[in-house]
Amino acid sequence: MKALVYRGPGKRAWEDVDRPTIQAPTDAIVRITTTTICGTDLHILEGDVPAVQPGRVLGHEGVGVVEEVGDAVRNVRPGDRVLISAITADGRCDRCRIQMYSHCRNGGWVLGHLIDGTQAEFVRIPFADTSTYKLGPDADEEAMVMLSDIFPTGFEVGVLNGQVRPGNRVVIVGAGPIGWASLLTAQLCGPSEIWMVDLDRNRLDVAKKWGATRTFDAGDANLAETIRELTNGDGVDVAIEAVGVPATWDLCQKIVAPGGRIANVGVHGKAVQFDIERLWIQNITVTTGLVDTRTIPTLMRLIEAGKLDTRRMATHRFALHDAMKAYDTFANAAKEQAIKVVMRA
Amino acid sequence: MKALVYRGPGKRAWEDVDRPTIQAPTDAIVRITTTTICGTDLHILEGDVPAVQPGRVLGHEGVGVVEEVGDAVRNVRPGDRVLISAITADGRCDRCRIQMYSHCRNGGWVLGHLIDGTQAEFVRIPFADTSTYKLGPDADEEAMVMLSDIFPTGFEVGVLNGQVRPGNRVVIVGAGPIGWASLLTAQLCGPSEIWMVDLDRNRLDVAKKWGATRTFDAGDANLAETIRELTNGDGVDVAIEAVGVPATWDLCQKIVAPGGRIANVGVHGKAVQFDIERLWIQNITVTTGLVDTRTIPTLMRLIEAGKLDTRRMATHRFALHDAMKAYDTFANAAKEQAIKVVMRA
Amino acid sequence: MKALVYRGPGKRAWEDVDRPTIQAPTDAIVRITTTTICGTDLHILEGDVPAVQPGRVLGHEGVGVVEEVGDAVRNVRPGDRVLISAITADGRCDRCRIQMYSHCRNGGWVLGHLIDGTQAEFVRIPFADTSTYKLGPDADEEAMVMLSDIFPTGFEVGVLNGQVRPGNRVVIVGAGPIGWASLLTAQLCGPSEIWMVDLDRNRLDVAKKWGATRTFDAGDANLAETIRELTNGDGVDVAIEAVGVPATWDLCQKIVAPGGRIANVGVHGKAVQFDIERLWIQNITVTTGLVDTRTIPTLMRLIEAGKLDTRRMATHRFALHDAMKAYDTFANAAKEQAIKVVMRA
Amino acid sequence: MKALVYRGPGKRAWEDVDRPTIQAPTDAIVRITTTTICGTDLHILEGDVPAVQPGRVLGHEGVGVVEEVGDAVRNVRPGDRVLISAITADGRCDRCRIQMYSHCRNGGWVLGHLIDGTQAEFVRIPFADTSTYKLGPDADEEAMVMLSDIFPTGFEVGVLNGQVRPGNRVVIVGAGPIGWASLLTAQLCGPSEIWMVDLDRNRLDVAKKWGATRTFDAGDANLAETIRELTNGDGVDVAIEAVGVPATWDLCQKIVAPGGRIANVGVHGKAVQFDIERLWIQNITVTTGLVDTRTIPTLMRLIEAGKLDTRRMATHRFALHDAMKAYDTFANAAKEQAIKVVMRA
Repeated sequence: MKALVYRGPGKRAWEDVDRPTIQAPTDAIVRITTTTICGTDLHILEGDVPAVQPGRVLGHEGVGVVEEVGDAVRNVRPGDRVLISAITADGRCDRCRIQMYSHCRNGGWVLGHLIDGTQAEFVRIPFADTSTYKLGPDADEEAMVMLSDIFPTGFEVGVLNGQVRPGNRVVIVGAGPIGWASLLTAQLCGPSEIWMVDLDRNRLDVAKKWGATRTFDAGDANLAETIRELTNGDGVDVAIEAVGVPATWDLCQKIVAPGGRIANVGVHGKAVQFDIERLWIQNITVTTGLVDTRTIPTLMRLIEAGKLDTRRMATHRFALHDAMKAYDTFANAAKEQAIKVVMRA
Repeated sequence: MKALVYRGPGKRAWEDVDRPTIQAPTDAIVRITTTTICGTDLHILEGDVPAVQPGRVLGHEGVGVVEEVGDAVRNVRPGDRVLISAITADGRCDRCRIQMYSHCRNGGWVLGHLIDGTQAEFVRIPFADTSTYKLGPDADEEAMVMLSDIFPTGFEVGVLNGQVRPGNRVVIVGAGPIGWASLLTAQLCGPSEIWMVDLDRNRLDVAKKWGATRTFDAGDANLAETIRELTNGDGVDVAIEAVGVPATWDLCQKIVAPGGRIANVGVHGKAVQFDIERLWIQNITVTTGLVDTRTIPTLMRLIEAGKLDTRRMATHRFALHDAMKAYDTFANAAKEQAIKVVMRA
Repeated sequence: MKALVYRGPGKRAWEDVDRPTIQAPTDAIVRITTTTICGTDLHILEGDVPAVQPGRVLGHEGVGVVEEVGDAVRNVRPGDRVLISAITADGRCDRCRIQMYSHCRNGGWVLGHLIDGTQAEFVRIPFADTSTYKLGPDADEEAMVMLSDIFPTGFEVGVLNGQVRPGNRVVIVGAGPIGWASLLTAQLCGPSEIWMVDLDRNRLDVAKKWGATRTFDAGDANLAETIRELTNGDGVDVAIEAVGVPATWDLCQKIVAPGGRIANVGVHGKAVQFDIERLWIQNITVTTGLVDTRTIPTLMRLIEAGKLDTRRMATHRFALHDAMKAYDTFANAAKEQAIKVVMRA
Repeated sequence: MKALVYRGPGKRAWEDVDRPTIQAPTDAIVRITTTTICGTDLHILEGDVPAVQPGRVLGHEGVGVVEEVGDAVRNVRPGDRVLISAITADGRCDRCRIQMYSHCRNGGWVLGHLIDGTQAEFVRIPFADTSTYKLGPDADEEAMVMLSDIFPTGFEVGVLNGQVRPGNRVVIVGAGPIGWASLLTAQLCGPSEIWMVDLDRNRLDVAKKWGATRTFDAGDANLAETIRELTNGDGVDVAIEAVGVPATWDLCQKIVAPGGRIANVGVHGKAVQFDIERLWIQNITVTTGLVDTRTIPTLMRLIEAGKLDTRRMATHRFALHDAMKAYDTFANAAKEQAIKVVMRA
């Protein structure tokens, strides 16, 4: 079969690889019908994720049709259309038993990382019962593929960790895919204000259309002060860090109110300075997290009920066999005004 | 001054009474500018609330302008426009310290009940610092007066006690003012479905316009079964009881799913049968409560941000001195299609 | 092999039955080394649980050694000593994913109920990975067998549902095994007072020895009043109902304070009267539940750390092949001063 | 009257000052009967808290007898014996309404800081109704004075912020007064292990006697590794930072398990490095906080019930007029093996 293969830093190819087969009674083989590219895939291509070895099929997001299942699989069967979670959960270890699937003893983020991923014609999904979700006949695949990773990430690691509650003032720092997913899911929790911060005016315009009540230029040197003034000097209830660099972290710690929360979603490459000599007295909470994807069923139900529109994130579409072109586009996301680039078989 | 006075069962009058004066350093005297009538006021007039003595000025909802304050009052001063909470909180007893103002040792629901109320030209508000909320210059009084009682009740006792969460299926039994307040505030918590049950088609039509995703005729003998079927036999996550009779309680206990919640908001006149021989095994939670009005600041902020429209509840308007006519209208609420009847000075 | 078999109302026998075999790749066969009898087993023998068919091997509590496992079992292997949960959890359905194992779509309470149970030389445990817990080499089997059902029940359905918090006043109604398990685990949550109510003086004496700070005779006609007086008229923060008859429920609803919780653990045979005409205003919470056994790992850790002594519940010991005698003793628990009767192979 | 007065960095005196008088209707004047010295008082004397002006009476902990109250005070009256909270709460601002008294708009930590404090014969307590707690006739003053600050701090900022739950593994870094208060109150929440870390062997011995299940030498260069090994490489559920320097913060961030919490109680003088490039993926929570003293009533009830022994912290006693000697002793706490130095009038 064909797949998008990592060939070492800076190198990728759409090439022939062996079609996966069942290796354990809990496995399923899924024929991919829809997949997409994550910012993390670009990081891998830059060589930033050393655990990914050349030869690895990339991708951890996808929708497809079950081709074959191991003897122990009960939730899905051949012919079922399923959503694949970016996080593989064995469902039986101590971490999975408390829904912390991100730290599954035998899974976690492995797809397109430690085992072959979803940007391929077929993929093997371990622990299929607890790592895939059966879709209804009317499910929109482009809407659903957004639940593999990005929407649960924004919702769980940004909104729920940040404890967004009715009437809260929320700032989301970073109007990229994760920031938008946080923006759209924060609206499920009744905030009075959701402000977004970014350097890119186009992205802030999208944010406004999607419910941001105010936007701010990240380049403004007085931004922290401006935000504090808008809150009578108190700061905001929730600051969601959706970038992952010291400057955005720093903005968050400068604008959080006493009793407020900083929910870190950004993937950081280096340590940050935590102004604890000022914040020890401020009764704040800081959270971090890799997504558990435990909210996939909730988000699916909200999409089905018409209460959440995830499909709007799909700005560009390619055939699966044009995966190389899709990467070209996504690698220039700002210029292409691309949010999520969808590939369909 | 003039006030609406209870004169014993079935009797009310708009008559002269003494203007209230400061009695304690924590009191404020408020000149009423907007008030409204609660279903409870009608119950009082029917003689159902024996603690209310003839001669009592009725009313526990209101907006007005502070005329005078006691020496210890700090939050408000003469000339301030304020929202009056239906619940008087001394702010210093053990119950108030945990925000259970409903059971304040020196307050609770006293206005228009144990002391003179708000359907008058002036009212004395004890513990004014913790029983009134200063309004901004742009505040809409008709929107705000809905926060004295009915919106906090729907939100706290219905929605928050019921733990409405993103993706939940919610049924609200009773499309009266409390039911609608629950409907509007439930939408702050991201449910996937909000279904409403009532006997009155007009009221259900309003519910649909205001966000109910489906409505049901309370007269349907198979209603519990119908609702269970719509949920694949499971039942709903949250059932909000907003009527207060055995039949509506019974519907709630028949439709709640394992792990679900029944939030009772209805004022009940008699005991109900609790099917614990069936429900002991169902992992359900039942809550009751008088409103604490602790969410008034949250709801004020949501109104100001344009995220909550409480004003739509005001269907009929009268001058304060036409309070008798206002009562006539509200007493025939179904026929008049009245939701809340507002009186303005 | 030999097993204790239900032969219809009032009839039980220790007799030969077929030894169980693996039927699904997620099964394990466990050789029982320690088991015990639950009050529910007596109810079955009285014919009160019609779903139990004659011929059924009884018992849902046990410790044993894994003999054989299906292909998909990963957590345990032959030779491992394991604790068996009274609740069988497939670990993959929607209810198991939120730890509501009691309502597992393919499990729940099935052992000794819908499938053969643990009072036998061998038992088949479906979904062994999520329905058994591996024991350490030093584990005391008599301490651990108490975690199959009774301690998680007292802790989850009584203490955690009742939200026992530091400084709370707690009443436990019913000093039977469930009441004692609630008593011992409530002490993990820092209450200031734990009062116990029962008719049996011996049982109350045990309660005192095990940490009850005060005991009350359930026969006292003024008991509710007495308890309210001891709390300055307020009532208690938490009332745990551990009997299951209308009178004990009624006591609970009479003694709960505003803002308090009633946690029902008792198995009720008929509906009760819920005094909602008085309680609607009292901000109370009532919970029900079948045990999920989700706290087994927590309780195991506490036993290992010496912080919880479950072993003291084992008052009588028999050889497994003397199961008939063990039942005779447990059926006269009050007279025999038996709490839990343990059978060891 | 006499008082302990700050006279600039390094200088203190027991001298005559004006006796305080009622300044607002919510004030009370309290005659001090028991007070104590906090580590913060030593910091003030070192000149580390510039907001404290020379001439300020020090002290924010105390028990005493009410001498006089303003017109609006209702909870206490002359002759009542009261505990004084280190945190002054007006009870009426938005922060106090949600029990975040530490950030009261008109109070917070002001005693012995921005207004005169408790190390004096008399003290003025603003907002006495919400800043003092009436004691029962049998209350032990030495036990109670520990509730002014240190025990609520350990409990709220360490134990509750750290979400210590039954079966948790907890490490407390720093066996000083705050660490011990955390140790004693953590035991109200059922942890399986409480480990303490300090450089001082004497202090660790005290910790062992008071319930630490294991102690560690903070000087061990491999300490983080040792602790991780003892937890099978996972780390601990809760790390309580009770020192306030970069090294102790760093230990905490190295030993916290996925899903774990770091509760900072230490007062930090400089920023720390937060290893977010490693921790972003670890699903941790970090909290900070100044004490709200909202748990004083809970802790009082636990002392009265004999469930919490705070009195053992009082190792040295002086007459109030020997306050200068008491400071001498406390300034050499390690050498004197002093924990809390109590002064009684």
